[in-house]
Amino acid sequence: MIDLRSDTVTKPTEEMRKAMYDAEVGDDVYQDDPTVRLLEETAADILGKESALFVTSGTQGNQIAVLTHCRPGQEIILEAESHIFYYESGATAALAGVQTRTIQGTRGAMDPAAVKEAIRGVDIHYPETGLICIENTHNRAGGAIVPSENMREIYEMAKSEGIPVHTDGARLFNTAVAAGADVKEFAQYSDTVQVCLSKGLCAPVGSIIAGSKEFIAIARKWRKRLGGGMRQAGVIAAPGLIALTKMKDRLAEDHANAKRLAEGIREISGLQVVNQVDTNILVADVSGLGVTSGEFVRHLKEQGILAGSAGSATVRFVTHFDVKENQIQNAVYSISQAARKAAGKITG
Amino acid sequence: MIDLRSDTVTKPTEEMRKAMYDAEVGDDVYQDDPTVRLLEETAADILGKESALFVTSGTQGNQIAVLTHCRPGQEIILEAESHIFYYESGATAALAGVQTRTIQGTRGAMDPAAVKEAIRGVDIHYPETGLICIENTHNRAGGAIVPSENMREIYEMAKSEGIPVHTDGARLFNTAVAAGADVKEFAQYSDTVQVCLSKGLCAPVGSIIAGSKEFIAIARKWRKRLGGGMRQAGVIAAPGLIALTKMKDRLAEDHANAKRLAEGIREISGLQVVNQVDTNILVADVSGLGVTSGEFVRHLKEQGILAGSAGSATVRFVTHFDVKENQIQNAVYSISQAARKAAGKITG
Amino acid sequence: MIDLRSDTVTKPTEEMRKAMYDAEVGDDVYQDDPTVRLLEETAADILGKESALFVTSGTQGNQIAVLTHCRPGQEIILEAESHIFYYESGATAALAGVQTRTIQGTRGAMDPAAVKEAIRGVDIHYPETGLICIENTHNRAGGAIVPSENMREIYEMAKSEGIPVHTDGARLFNTAVAAGADVKEFAQYSDTVQVCLSKGLCAPVGSIIAGSKEFIAIARKWRKRLGGGMRQAGVIAAPGLIALTKMKDRLAEDHANAKRLAEGIREISGLQVVNQVDTNILVADVSGLGVTSGEFVRHLKEQGILAGSAGSATVRFVTHFDVKENQIQNAVYSISQAARKAAGKITG
Amino acid sequence: MIDLRSDTVTKPTEEMRKAMYDAEVGDDVYQDDPTVRLLEETAADILGKESALFVTSGTQGNQIAVLTHCRPGQEIILEAESHIFYYESGATAALAGVQTRTIQGTRGAMDPAAVKEAIRGVDIHYPETGLICIENTHNRAGGAIVPSENMREIYEMAKSEGIPVHTDGARLFNTAVAAGADVKEFAQYSDTVQVCLSKGLCAPVGSIIAGSKEFIAIARKWRKRLGGGMRQAGVIAAPGLIALTKMKDRLAEDHANAKRLAEGIREISGLQVVNQVDTNILVADVSGLGVTSGEFVRHLKEQGILAGSAGSATVRFVTHFDVKENQIQNAVYSISQAARKAAGKITG
Repeated sequence: MIDLRSDTVTKPTEEMRKAMYDAEVGDDVYQDDPTVRLLEETAADILGKESALFVTSGTQGNQIAVLTHCRPGQEIILEAESHIFYYESGATAALAGVQTRTIQGTRGAMDPAAVKEAIRGVDIHYPETGLICIENTHNRAGGAIVPSENMREIYEMAKSEGIPVHTDGARLFNTAVAAGADVKEFAQYSDTVQVCLSKGLCAPVGSIIAGSKEFIAIARKWRKRLGGGMRQAGVIAAPGLIALTKMKDRLAEDHANAKRLAEGIREISGLQVVNQVDTNILVADVSGLGVTSGEFVRHLKEQGILAGSAGSATVRFVTHFDVKENQIQNAVYSISQAARKAAGKITG
Repeated sequence: MIDLRSDTVTKPTEEMRKAMYDAEVGDDVYQDDPTVRLLEETAADILGKESALFVTSGTQGNQIAVLTHCRPGQEIILEAESHIFYYESGATAALAGVQTRTIQGTRGAMDPAAVKEAIRGVDIHYPETGLICIENTHNRAGGAIVPSENMREIYEMAKSEGIPVHTDGARLFNTAVAAGADVKEFAQYSDTVQVCLSKGLCAPVGSIIAGSKEFIAIARKWRKRLGGGMRQAGVIAAPGLIALTKMKDRLAEDHANAKRLAEGIREISGLQVVNQVDTNILVADVSGLGVTSGEFVRHLKEQGILAGSAGSATVRFVTHFDVKENQIQNAVYSISQAARKAAGKITG
Repeated sequence: MIDLRSDTVTKPTEEMRKAMYDAEVGDDVYQDDPTVRLLEETAADILGKESALFVTSGTQGNQIAVLTHCRPGQEIILEAESHIFYYESGATAALAGVQTRTIQGTRGAMDPAAVKEAIRGVDIHYPETGLICIENTHNRAGGAIVPSENMREIYEMAKSEGIPVHTDGARLFNTAVAAGADVKEFAQYSDTVQVCLSKGLCAPVGSIIAGSKEFIAIARKWRKRLGGGMRQAGVIAAPGLIALTKMKDRLAEDHANAKRLAEGIREISGLQVVNQVDTNILVADVSGLGVTSGEFVRHLKEQGILAGSAGSATVRFVTHFDVKENQIQNAVYSISQAARKAAGKITG
Repeated sequence: MIDLRSDTVTKPTEEMRKAMYDAEVGDDVYQDDPTVRLLEETAADILGKESALFVTSGTQGNQIAVLTHCRPGQEIILEAESHIFYYESGATAALAGVQTRTIQGTRGAMDPAAVKEAIRGVDIHYPETGLICIENTHNRAGGAIVPSENMREIYEMAKSEGIPVHTDGARLFNTAVAAGADVKEFAQYSDTVQVCLSKGLCAPVGSIIAGSKEFIAIARKWRKRLGGGMRQAGVIAAPGLIALTKMKDRLAEDHANAKRLAEGIREISGLQVVNQVDTNILVADVSGLGVTSGEFVRHLKEQGILAGSAGSATVRFVTHFDVKENQIQNAVYSISQAARKAAGKITG
């Protein structure tokens, strides 16, 4: 099986396993865990923020950001297919009591003018705009890079309006590596930023939320309310530290593999690569095969390829550490076989 | 002053004032107020529902519907410029913990296929779709009538998916009158419906939410939590009864006046009527005058016309009981004067 | 029937009905209703606060206070049998996301030392104390007066801790009249105060919440979210104004009647007056009759007396404007008959 | 330093570290992690429930239970000093919108009659009672065992009322070991139960929530909303499995050590052991020393003993795996030195 469902399936490396084994730990609820503290300090430093907090998932990091920035009755502006809106089970309303105002983006990037237009004025009928969220890379836009220039424009406009900005940077290191820039180049245009250690960076568990000291102090309490206050969390912070310090540069390999995969898939009759493949995500339209995405996913599985539906006619493939360059050719072959079967050209 | 800001500005009629004076009352928290009970029974009957509840505003009726139909963590589907989303201060998230998923409609009507597409499947990342909301007439679409056929299609699809439908019918009697149909023709395609007594129907205060007996029993408790449980509410139910039984047919006059107003405004240079004027709402684009809507509203006020911004370049005019046919010609003249001043053709 | 269930059953006076008939009104959502404005200014003045807001019920006033003072994740301190905790359907948690920390009071008054002890320190495990609520008179303590000295001690301690104080003064005018003091004497020891117009003061609908201008501005928006923004609300503000300006002093009659009733009931075998009858509420223990309170309420009804259970063995009687001095003797007689029947001394 | 602050400070054992190193893992959001699945199945089996869910903390487990059992506007009944009420930062209101109704227990056990009395009847003013929570052992009652008979009575009464019961069994294995009974003996009297792997059982991170299959399916989604959906969670489930299968019996040592500690402390002038020391928690009143608990905690620290305040005059000591029998004597000596210094009998 070649698992291309998501980079979340990456398993901890040998070095990470050893780090867990060796981790120096303490009770992190008492802020006594030295490994967690080191991870948080390191992350803050890498992201160019005053302070950082280790959380159990990207969703938790994003939700804590919304809870900390906003009050119930406010509205947040975010991209119409962003993870916070699309894939977090409605948590912003359920937990923070905050309404989502969505903007249709272009390759994941919201037009700063449209964002500005969506900010609510003063009127008793209006929720106050409490936060603007950016997602970079943008998952449902196919791992698209949101340009730092776009982030800058939104951020400066937001500052002039007195509205905070949060970046869901679950894959912000993919952005930085693909753009050939330091991650701070992007993180600087956001008051708070969430990055995942558990996707392309291979840590088994966890994300980071970074921002000002004052923000993190309040965020820490929301983490506690959500049940994210852990004890000897150093055992998972230790592989997180390796993820953060040693695994970023190799994301370039995933990007190269995704491009290789795209080249292969473009040759397959009935499949259409619909995104630009900026980073490690490829989205293919399967309607040329005359099947739904769900049906094609089943055909893929029979050929030893795991992938997921991105829509009723689109399938998503994600490259990552556990899929090596030399597997891409096999993957393309298996996908082409699946396509032929799906199209009825060969009988199963 | 001719007040065209909204039909909410209508004042109670002489008959309504007498009804308040004479109202038989009791303590409605104990369900002892005969006038409230009569209003609720009458409303249920007119709307073709089992039961009804008197609430203090359309917003309260809509929010109680969301609170009663949904649970936190669910998502509701509604039109992108619907009142519940746009003008209720973010209450669906703040009170009910429910996420809003917006669909861009055409003249206020959502495409049933787009609604169906927006219903969430079973996935741990997804909020469950808990409710579909329709607005009829649609305020921000310029008082547009949502066809009963459109409601039927959405309702039948929703039934097949097991999802309830609520109609924000703040101006549903305008719909019925303009369509020449009984209001039940529209209300039948919705599990619950909210209608306002205080807009074109002229009651001073209040709305009705109608649905099944079971629904209303739970809704009554949510009304109590929101502080909508009133005591001798018969004093405002009495004019509400007159609104409901005697004021519906005359909405046709408001519609005729709106059409007269539209004819006049179409002649004014620099103003463009942008909606179809189905009912009593007219929206005009003022950008041809070289001013913003806010500036034009101030010019209008100087000429004795009250109106409101609908967007940065659009102004809304609403006809109602307190603006008579013979005032429309004066209104057009004053609006044209305001337009000339705004355009700089005459000096103030 | 003599209705002693509650002073909420009072009906509007002839003068109030005329005031409704004559009320000058406007659209209060636009703050255009002169009668509402006059009521709010008058109420602020009487209560010694900067600003006031007309709401549809005491529950709404209290909930808006909690929503405006607090954030989710905070805790409020209040008396264990207070209305906000006991009778508002769990709204503080449902709407404001605020935890209730209850203190057992003595005749409705909380020991300031116990309140201080209940204030949370700084600890990640603790909700922050966001508000202290006082109830005066205290309903479930039998209309007990909370001394202004007790309020002062709590208020001063709260100030030193930086915690706001809200008073549920649904019957604060009863307190003032019974204490022979101006209502400001009590209201001064609270940042915000809610008073009902619809209980002993006889208005059909409504309450007032008063506080600082800044507080009321935010409260107004929460009122809108709860659906309490009404249109020509002047029709109910008009009787509210009469309630506020002309009906306070006569509460003394209700208090005298309650004392008369107490004298009578004390003579009835099997009944025990359990409260001090400071104001217009009398609570009687019926266990000496060998029946539950629910059973005794039914016996009372057969004798033409309406009352309510206050607990499984206690029945509450409330005097008010619609029960005159000359009815008290009859009421006592009917209650004694009910007691004899309940005790099985006579056959029904 | 001898760390007696809490059994949460226990560090993973060598065997646990090896298990992390060796753990077979997968993406648990896809339910692909075999170690997590094994842990959940094992936990369900041990607790006698259909299904179980691995969560990141006891707080998360408890909050998910409340979120899954209840709806906003409901009320839960729980002991006045229970962890859910006292130490979870007000999360039940903030997240689930549920009001807390507290019952003062005796050694942590609520009187079933008092619980029954607190269940709300049907009344529009009342929140519905949605859940009863039991805590066993009861932390703030000094690790007191709640007898299974008490649990049975509450559970049977709750069943007859149609109300679910949840047990916060963060230390339920301490209960079982001290009572010499199987943990199922206690868990059977509760619809759902939460147990911590990270306290006396020494796992670095995590708790279990167990109940019916249907309950766990909904709970899993709430875990996702709270951000508790982790990826290769097997790395922390692996030590959790060891905790669950190999570490329970040794809790008896902690209990024996706590009793030894109690014997020692009882000899120290100025200190008073105030709890019965059923399990591994000891609470001492320090007021005989003439200092506050905070001051005495500082004296203890100077003597190499870490402990925590349980109240303004009480200090809590908790025994656990990382404090061995042979350290107890030293601990007693150091505590006695601290007491002497605190009392001013020797100069620092």
